[in-house]
Amino acid sequence: MSTNKVHPVALIGVGRIGAIHFKNILNNHDLSLKWVIDVNEKAAQEFASKVPGCQASSSTTKMLEDASIEGVIICSPTAEHTKAILDCLRAGKAVMCEKPISLNLEDIDLCYNESKRLNIPLLCAYQRRHDESFAKARQTINNGSIGKVQIVRSTSRDHPLPTLNFLKISGKIFHDCTSHDIDMVRWLTGEDPCEVFAFGSAFRSEIASLHDWDTVTINLKFPSGVLATIDVSRFAAYGYDQRIEIHGDQGMVQAFNQQPTSCVVSTHEGVKSDPYFHSFPQRYEKTYATELAHFVRVIRRETEPMVNHDDIKKVTIIASAAERSCETGAPIKLTY
Amino acid sequence: MSTNKVHPVALIGVGRIGAIHFKNILNNHDLSLKWVIDVNEKAAQEFASKVPGCQASSSTTKMLEDASIEGVIICSPTAEHTKAILDCLRAGKAVMCEKPISLNLEDIDLCYNESKRLNIPLLCAYQRRHDESFAKARQTINNGSIGKVQIVRSTSRDHPLPTLNFLKISGKIFHDCTSHDIDMVRWLTGEDPCEVFAFGSAFRSEIASLHDWDTVTINLKFPSGVLATIDVSRFAAYGYDQRIEIHGDQGMVQAFNQQPTSCVVSTHEGVKSDPYFHSFPQRYEKTYATELAHFVRVIRRETEPMVNHDDIKKVTIIASAAERSCETGAPIKLTY
Amino acid sequence: MSTNKVHPVALIGVGRIGAIHFKNILNNHDLSLKWVIDVNEKAAQEFASKVPGCQASSSTTKMLEDASIEGVIICSPTAEHTKAILDCLRAGKAVMCEKPISLNLEDIDLCYNESKRLNIPLLCAYQRRHDESFAKARQTINNGSIGKVQIVRSTSRDHPLPTLNFLKISGKIFHDCTSHDIDMVRWLTGEDPCEVFAFGSAFRSEIASLHDWDTVTINLKFPSGVLATIDVSRFAAYGYDQRIEIHGDQGMVQAFNQQPTSCVVSTHEGVKSDPYFHSFPQRYEKTYATELAHFVRVIRRETEPMVNHDDIKKVTIIASAAERSCETGAPIKLTY
Amino acid sequence: MSTNKVHPVALIGVGRIGAIHFKNILNNHDLSLKWVIDVNEKAAQEFASKVPGCQASSSTTKMLEDASIEGVIICSPTAEHTKAILDCLRAGKAVMCEKPISLNLEDIDLCYNESKRLNIPLLCAYQRRHDESFAKARQTINNGSIGKVQIVRSTSRDHPLPTLNFLKISGKIFHDCTSHDIDMVRWLTGEDPCEVFAFGSAFRSEIASLHDWDTVTINLKFPSGVLATIDVSRFAAYGYDQRIEIHGDQGMVQAFNQQPTSCVVSTHEGVKSDPYFHSFPQRYEKTYATELAHFVRVIRRETEPMVNHDDIKKVTIIASAAERSCETGAPIKLTY
Repeated sequence: MSTNKVHPVALIGVGRIGAIHFKNILNNHDLSLKWVIDVNEKAAQEFASKVPGCQASSSTTKMLEDASIEGVIICSPTAEHTKAILDCLRAGKAVMCEKPISLNLEDIDLCYNESKRLNIPLLCAYQRRHDESFAKARQTINNGSIGKVQIVRSTSRDHPLPTLNFLKISGKIFHDCTSHDIDMVRWLTGEDPCEVFAFGSAFRSEIASLHDWDTVTINLKFPSGVLATIDVSRFAAYGYDQRIEIHGDQGMVQAFNQQPTSCVVSTHEGVKSDPYFHSFPQRYEKTYATELAHFVRVIRRETEPMVNHDDIKKVTIIASAAERSCETGAPIKLTY
Repeated sequence: MSTNKVHPVALIGVGRIGAIHFKNILNNHDLSLKWVIDVNEKAAQEFASKVPGCQASSSTTKMLEDASIEGVIICSPTAEHTKAILDCLRAGKAVMCEKPISLNLEDIDLCYNESKRLNIPLLCAYQRRHDESFAKARQTINNGSIGKVQIVRSTSRDHPLPTLNFLKISGKIFHDCTSHDIDMVRWLTGEDPCEVFAFGSAFRSEIASLHDWDTVTINLKFPSGVLATIDVSRFAAYGYDQRIEIHGDQGMVQAFNQQPTSCVVSTHEGVKSDPYFHSFPQRYEKTYATELAHFVRVIRRETEPMVNHDDIKKVTIIASAAERSCETGAPIKLTY
Repeated sequence: MSTNKVHPVALIGVGRIGAIHFKNILNNHDLSLKWVIDVNEKAAQEFASKVPGCQASSSTTKMLEDASIEGVIICSPTAEHTKAILDCLRAGKAVMCEKPISLNLEDIDLCYNESKRLNIPLLCAYQRRHDESFAKARQTINNGSIGKVQIVRSTSRDHPLPTLNFLKISGKIFHDCTSHDIDMVRWLTGEDPCEVFAFGSAFRSEIASLHDWDTVTINLKFPSGVLATIDVSRFAAYGYDQRIEIHGDQGMVQAFNQQPTSCVVSTHEGVKSDPYFHSFPQRYEKTYATELAHFVRVIRRETEPMVNHDDIKKVTIIASAAERSCETGAPIKLTY
Repeated sequence: MSTNKVHPVALIGVGRIGAIHFKNILNNHDLSLKWVIDVNEKAAQEFASKVPGCQASSSTTKMLEDASIEGVIICSPTAEHTKAILDCLRAGKAVMCEKPISLNLEDIDLCYNESKRLNIPLLCAYQRRHDESFAKARQTINNGSIGKVQIVRSTSRDHPLPTLNFLKISGKIFHDCTSHDIDMVRWLTGEDPCEVFAFGSAFRSEIASLHDWDTVTINLKFPSGVLATIDVSRFAAYGYDQRIEIHGDQGMVQAFNQQPTSCVVSTHEGVKSDPYFHSFPQRYEKTYATELAHFVRVIRRETEPMVNHDDIKKVTIIASAAERSCETGAPIKLTY
């Protein structure tokens, strides 16, 4: 329980991920929620009404003028990120923005350059970095327990299947999904890949008709010789599946899936435990709260944003190259 | 996110368990904390100062007079429970009291009879009943998955070793620790044991000098033929260890320990995962919040307290009999 | 692959366990099977016919006169053990006899005293001592990894349910089943218990009508303060279940059940792996071969039998006392 | 215990894998070992001397003339396979030959065509197909439990590091190691890949100097859209590591590594179990015996060889293409 100053913040967007951050803001006693913004004003009001002293609006105008606001959590659709980020930074408010900042490098540079120029922090929300299990995997690598890294394997299979409406605006599987794995692989190895190759399939016709893929594998090669494979699916029937494995010359570390309870039932049919978590809100329940606590420290200038301009730029370059490899059938050399 | 009425509550006692409930009250948006009471007024003030509009006091007097208070969470030492419970009930406030209500049956009856007479609910906090894994085990039994129950095994091994000061006032191992297992065994089987036998050892001299035990095993027999064993230790070097296993004629259900992360490290030395949780605040972090949510429903008279007079009375009778068996070396027939 | 002398041996009894030893004798290239004896001569012939140079008989007479025979593996019914053991020892043949040697202490003493007098080794087959997992548990204790032992928990649940014909001559659950657990607890702790208490139930009416139990729990206390619980069932619906757990002041070691394959299937219903092994021949497949290799070393006088007179005597005393405790409802002090 | 005819067989080569087959031949009571052949005649004699009636030789000449021999197990170096296979087939002896039959397609065709022409079976030993866990994975796929296959991941990491002498003649990592994974992926999916891409690294300078790789990742695409990744390392510090995972639209099946015992030790440092098996003789101990039992049925013409001409040819084509992809940096379209 910190006795530090409480920071007034605003929340933009109260969709699926916005609702998660809303709950965590309320439970983070270093933050006080003063504004809820959503183009759907009714939704904004519904959320705001649960918090004494919190205002609702369908536009950011008044919030940006509210000098008391120190930070803004942006959960609006990707297409609206750049403008919202720039507006908030220029109003002097620290920003935590859901990924991706943008799908094009120009807007990414624009946002981060403005952040640098104004000296106002911009944090892109890659929540996996705040997850205890992935963080422990990284710590295991960094303390030398598995020696020199040689192979990384990252698996992400979503559950449940996203809606067609979401898929249409998702930015496609490479930018929407594999970007998390690409970020994780870079973060764990501390190295940027030099070449990428990808295969993709669309088992579902509605996804094929969007010229998107529901299943992809990516191969990465790093200057030091590290090899990485990523496999991603839009749908795992058995629940939310995100695992990582790192093989070094002294050992291996794996971060496995988690289950809601520790119950195991044994019958003549076998030994059975819970399905994996339903989806990301359950799997990363604690992780999102940890991420928000990191943003508090960012607001306080106690730490730099854990994910920075260089990270976002490189992940975008790699995801775009993987997508191009998948389209052209050729491996792509990476330059940054 | 409920849109129901928010209930003003008071917290008595801000020691180890009081601090846990304090945090959960703040995060439960159906409750608002208005009073923090502790004989150590400074401690009370420190907690209260973190909550806008919350008052502190070293006595319950003013809080009892505060007609707005609908519920009280009692976390003071056991010796003070009876008076606090009676005072709160008589002031019309629903009570959630940490276990045990009291070590003697007369006081237990006194409290529950007053609760009944006044029609003000009294909830004794046996948090394990609210734990997802133990609840799932019970549900597995109740839906018939393992058939007719035949053997129950319950293990509770504490970590870290409680302080000597705490051990002096703990009520000894049978009432302080095994009572949880006894409650769990009754709850899972839906049956009251008819005979008990116990062995006890004191490996630590400081515990022996208190005429207490640090290690006990309890054997229970039930009218239906179910047999149960309980083993309890004051200290598990490897972390907080609480497991349960139920063997039925169609299968078995086990609730295992849990670990902070899902990381597994493999080296030439073996395959290693995290130590178990450090202690009860970590192991039952979510459980305590669920318990408090149950108390909200109790305050609202939406449900009866999950743990009732009959439960508390019988657990106390069984724990006392187990203690007497351990002292006399003879099995004890149980009557209620 | 040893280049040592090959030892001619005889097998008495080709029932369930005899068939297991038969196969292992053939696969042990330090032994050559020369005689198969069974009261059912046809069965004896069927087995012998598979081995070049192996003779069959319904009586031990000629085998005992065969001076080439160095060792005999006795798998006949318990009632015939004493005579067979004495005959073999007196004919100068090392003996490996299935447990129990006998249900009464006089015959046990008779056999072992004759073994001692003649200096011909007698090995009683407690196969669990030769199991890699239980042996590793003991080694973990003995190398100090878990510190001073405080609690031992042993579970044995049989599968499938033995036939009624077998149950009638089994010697009842305490001598037939719990004796294995008693041996294991003594072997792991290196200590003899000083007091025993037991509860028993007969959920199956056919077992009740034999004045036997199908479900028992045993509590043991040791002079050093160690406490042990044993739970045993004649039937586990989910497969053969034998586990042990030892809690010391520095840690815990557990030997879990094993499964036929390492396959895990995840679907929306949960995460499922194989049922446990079907029964003892599968679970202890490798263990029985290891046990027989130990007998080769016994024949060669390279080692003393791992299970000796003292072990068998004490296990029998403890099992009898547990049975008496279960019948009388009183704990029993143990003297040896 | 079969009562069928016993088949006289010969063993060519008593190196590492030959010694494993030698032991299994002795334990397979449907086979009798009559000849041991090795260019090192002393080694051949040492093995033969352990088996009554078994002859040794440094050449195959006399064995080929021995009309009683029905089958030959070939474990000589790869370079000698083709001649030995042709000689044996032409002498009318069923052949089980260690993989690879040959590294070039012409010799493979030559051997299998001769087998077909003479109607004498030729079995190439891909032992993983006989492994219970991998077989269970395939059965899980085939019975529809995981629906339509979408992603396959195969991992093979060797332990201990092979000697430099072996590496020089191994045929390099793609043919020596990844061929097993390629076979497994084809066998599990029942489909031939249409495109392959591979990255390779040589972390060890002695391996780099052989123009070989110690670490490779392979991406495969199948006509149905199935995607597969294979990662292979010459050295896993933590033991022998071979796992497979298949993700379908209804679920996932995984075959995990196995450990020598089921012991788990918990201390303040964590929860630790055994290292994985030391190497292939331990991991596949039972598998090799199952494979030999399959060869018995092949000798008896009760079944076709589980691995056939088509399998060997395609695996070789794919492994060669993967190697070429790794060398050229370009994906390779596969035609058969």
